Amino acid sequence: MLEKVDLQKTVDKETYRQVSEELGERLGLLQRRCKAEKIPVIIVFEGLGAAGKGVQINRLIQPLDPRGFDVYASRRPGEEERMRPFLWRYWTKTPEDGRIAIFDRSWYDKVTVDRFDKITKRGELSGAFADITSFEKQLAEDGCVIIKLFLYISQKEQKKRFEKLTENKETKWRVSDGDWKRNKEYEKYLMMNEEMLEHTDTGYAPWTIIEATDKNYAAMKILATVADRMEYEVHKREEEKKEAGNAPSAAMPQDRFKNGVLSGVDLSLSIDKEEYKQQVDKLQKKLEYLHSEIYRLRIPVVIGFEGWDAAGKGGAIKRLTSHLDPRGYKVNPTAAPNDIEKVHHYLWRFWNNMPKAGHIAIFDRTWYGRVMVERIEGFCKEEDWRRAYQEINEMESHMANFGAVVLKFWLHIDKDEQERRFNERMNDPAKQWKITDEDWRNREKWDAYEAAVNEMLVRTSTTYAPWTIVEGNSKYYARVKVLRTVVEALEEKIKEVEKESNS
Amino acid sequence: MLEKVDLQKTVDKETYRQVSEELGERLGLLQRRCKAEKIPVIIVFEGLGAAGKGVQINRLIQPLDPRGFDVYASRRPGEEERMRPFLWRYWTKTPEDGRIAIFDRSWYDKVTVDRFDKITKRGELSGAFADITSFEKQLAEDGCVIIKLFLYISQKEQKKRFEKLTENKETKWRVSDGDWKRNKEYEKYLMMNEEMLEHTDTGYAPWTIIEATDKNYAAMKILATVADRMEYEVHKREEEKKEAGNAPSAAMPQDRFKNGVLSGVDLSLSIDKEEYKQQVDKLQKKLEYLHSEIYRLRIPVVIGFEGWDAAGKGGAIKRLTSHLDPRGYKVNPTAAPNDIEKVHHYLWRFWNNMPKAGHIAIFDRTWYGRVMVERIEGFCKEEDWRRAYQEINEMESHMANFGAVVLKFWLHIDKDEQERRFNERMNDPAKQWKITDEDWRNREKWDAYEAAVNEMLVRTSTTYAPWTIVEGNSKYYARVKVLRTVVEALEEKIKEVEKESNS
Repeated sequence: MLEKVDLQKTVDKETYRQVSEELGERLGLLQRRCKAEKIPVIIVFEGLGAAGKGVQINRLIQPLDPRGFDVYASRRPGEEERMRPFLWRYWTKTPEDGRIAIFDRSWYDKVTVDRFDKITKRGELSGAFADITSFEKQLAEDGCVIIKLFLYISQKEQKKRFEKLTENKETKWRVSDGDWKRNKEYEKYLMMNEEMLEHTDTGYAPWTIIEATDKNYAAMKILATVADRMEYEVHKREEEKKEAGNAPSAAMPQDRFKNGVLSGVDLSLSIDKEEYKQQVDKLQKKLEYLHSEIYRLRIPVVIGFEGWDAAGKGGAIKRLTSHLDPRGYKVNPTAAPNDIEKVHHYLWRFWNNMPKAGHIAIFDRTWYGRVMVERIEGFCKEEDWRRAYQEINEMESHMANFGAVVLKFWLHIDKDEQERRFNERMNDPAKQWKITDEDWRNREKWDAYEAAVNEMLVRTSTTYAPWTIVEGNSKYYARVKVLRTVVEALEEKIKEVEKESNS
Repeated sequence: MLEKVDLQKTVDKETYRQVSEELGERLGLLQRRCKAEKIPVIIVFEGLGAAGKGVQINRLIQPLDPRGFDVYASRRPGEEERMRPFLWRYWTKTPEDGRIAIFDRSWYDKVTVDRFDKITKRGELSGAFADITSFEKQLAEDGCVIIKLFLYISQKEQKKRFEKLTENKETKWRVSDGDWKRNKEYEKYLMMNEEMLEHTDTGYAPWTIIEATDKNYAAMKILATVADRMEYEVHKREEEKKEAGNAPSAAMPQDRFKNGVLSGVDLSLSIDKEEYKQQVDKLQKKLEYLHSEIYRLRIPVVIGFEGWDAAGKGGAIKRLTSHLDPRGYKVNPTAAPNDIEKVHHYLWRFWNNMPKAGHIAIFDRTWYGRVMVERIEGFCKEEDWRRAYQEINEMESHMANFGAVVLKFWLHIDKDEQERRFNERMNDPAKQWKITDEDWRNREKWDAYEAAVNEMLVRTSTTYAPWTIVEGNSKYYARVKVLRTVVEALEEKIKEVEKESNS
């Protein structure tokens, strides 16, 4: 993408003044329209050292309302960040609906500077490109406008700028050894950037090359690029709104998932109380030890619980955590999204709660709500939940690539057992709080849920993040199975990690 | 508090089993009742090394629903935390209504371990006690239940436990040099703890000493302490609710604040366009330089803007930020609180946005909403806003003690000027978005607001966080005054800091 670029482009001062004033006014207006339409915008500044990212960001924000944007400067990741996948710190910073997030350097460090410095290993590269494109795709499909700018100058120009910065005592510190190295090996570094541009130039998040030799020219092109794109997107949304007479109806699950995985589950499996006690005790002690091992080896663990109402999620979680050091795990209950969560990508809140290396995050209900309750109740559009299978697989693979153990449990009971437990709860004053009218209403949609769950199990059971179906009519059996599954998965992972570190 | 404590207390196994089972059931029930009543609970575990804090936390959480509590282990503060006042990291962790936060060590490190290690200087100590008590008071008055437990063992018992831990290869790392030092100088360290207990044992957040020689005895006493206190608090809230027939009416401002500070403001002050341009340009350049200086000297800066609708807050903020490096400041617009903010102390969201050392946080509307809009509209009780003056002063003094520059601007215009600007906005298509029906409604309450503002200015203008009243009928004059005030305050602070570091 870079070879055809004419770096000599300039603009005279008067034209710049006039044009940028007009563009500025347009941009201020567009910012307000994006806010009104609740469109989140991401603007990424990438490019070569001393190409003027800081200056250009400053010019871009002049016409913007400072209450509506945030600027994030990428620096070496902090200790909390290093303990999570590299995109985690950007996921947590994605803008809420109607706000603009401007990134001065970004997730592209991973495939440019860090690649040049060999911090990113050769084997990691294609995974990193895949992670980046799926990250951007997920945001774009959720309605986020992503504008990526690549500021480009020649080797000679860069050298001149570095020298000028170095001459001045106050600016000397801004040119690092790494900068000089990348200037000396300009061609090699440029090639890496070229490759980055090619791999990540997509329809939903295209790159714009900014010829940055002349600062005014660059500023003008940036303003125009941002304004045009925002205008286009605002216009598109407004058109879509007009056409949206045909509101999406709650799509019914497809027939072919009616007799799926769940119909084959053997719910007669059970164990007696004595065996239960022994097993639980043994497994909990093992787990306690494994918990300290995963802490030592810095393995993150993600455990998700889904299942029918009254299937025993709470009880299973309690047995799972009762011997764990509370400083090393966190149970995240998943309720209906709050104000803040509603104005972000639906995965945003789960990203925020992903465990750091060495810690366990347990989710009581999970991101699978998207393809169950949100699907059945029509809380999201059909295209949203259809896309969600892939999005979920991508998020889980992202965690797995980072070295996490990812486990998902479906706690299964049959309809009769559920009725029995509901009635039991109704009749026990100590348990009445556990049952609501909504539970009875959900029960009426059993068949629709069953088909949705069957489809979910098929589409999202992967080698790196398998589903375990837990036969739950016997609580004892279920709890032991959950514990055993976790213990075995951790043992396997620990073995794997130790083997790697020894080889 | 410690000398009369009998460390020999024990309990036999059978009694412990029975009592703790009963208490556990009670506690599970109380957790649900606290959730239903939306009562936040903080449980602090402090005490001597090897007194068994970890074990006891584990026992306490056994009967609790893991979805309703969080355990925080205090460790050395991270890089983000070191750049803020020592209570910042605890403010951000205060539980939301209905949840329990358990602290394994806490803000008391500052006045115990850190004092012993001379990290906390002698001169800081009384300030730290004051900060801690005001922190706890603010939370308690907002409805948070604070339970503080001090686990106590003898020097001999501690030594025995350290030795046992040291013998075992797996637990050896848990005993640090610091631990041994505190055991050798047991009396000295105990005295510091004694002093801490005396200074911070308050009606709203009392200490309970836990005799921790016998683990079962300690566990039983902890369970009983926590359960009794929660029971008492839940009961109290329920009683209060019953009595709350007399709902608080929106209290009217007192007469004596009718002709206050604002009536003496000279709104005829103005400057012409030419002078404005020159001044703004000069001041902005100065500010740009000062921004890099405060970054270098790690000075945090808090700037709050309040004022009448259409008084020109947005314009003033824009002139203030236009030459600043966007990576070094953040503008925080303050709207009505969202779901999450509503279930925390009203200062929580401002604490979250306090700047780190070297950064500027600008607030467009602030925590003063409590004593203006919330007061006038009756969004909080009279006792809440009356208490708020002190709470606000405490928060600002906390920041100032940490070395922050704290500035507050009241942008003042008269009623005629506001009407003129409202009409101008109505008639200009590019500005119509700025004006809503609510603005016209607020205008009708001008007198009530004026009295509230007068009271606010009197009660919260302090040497460490002064109010500046900005004569705003002339926008030019106002913007220059804001800029100049900030520039002068920063220059003064920088001079002060450099003088200190040279002496």
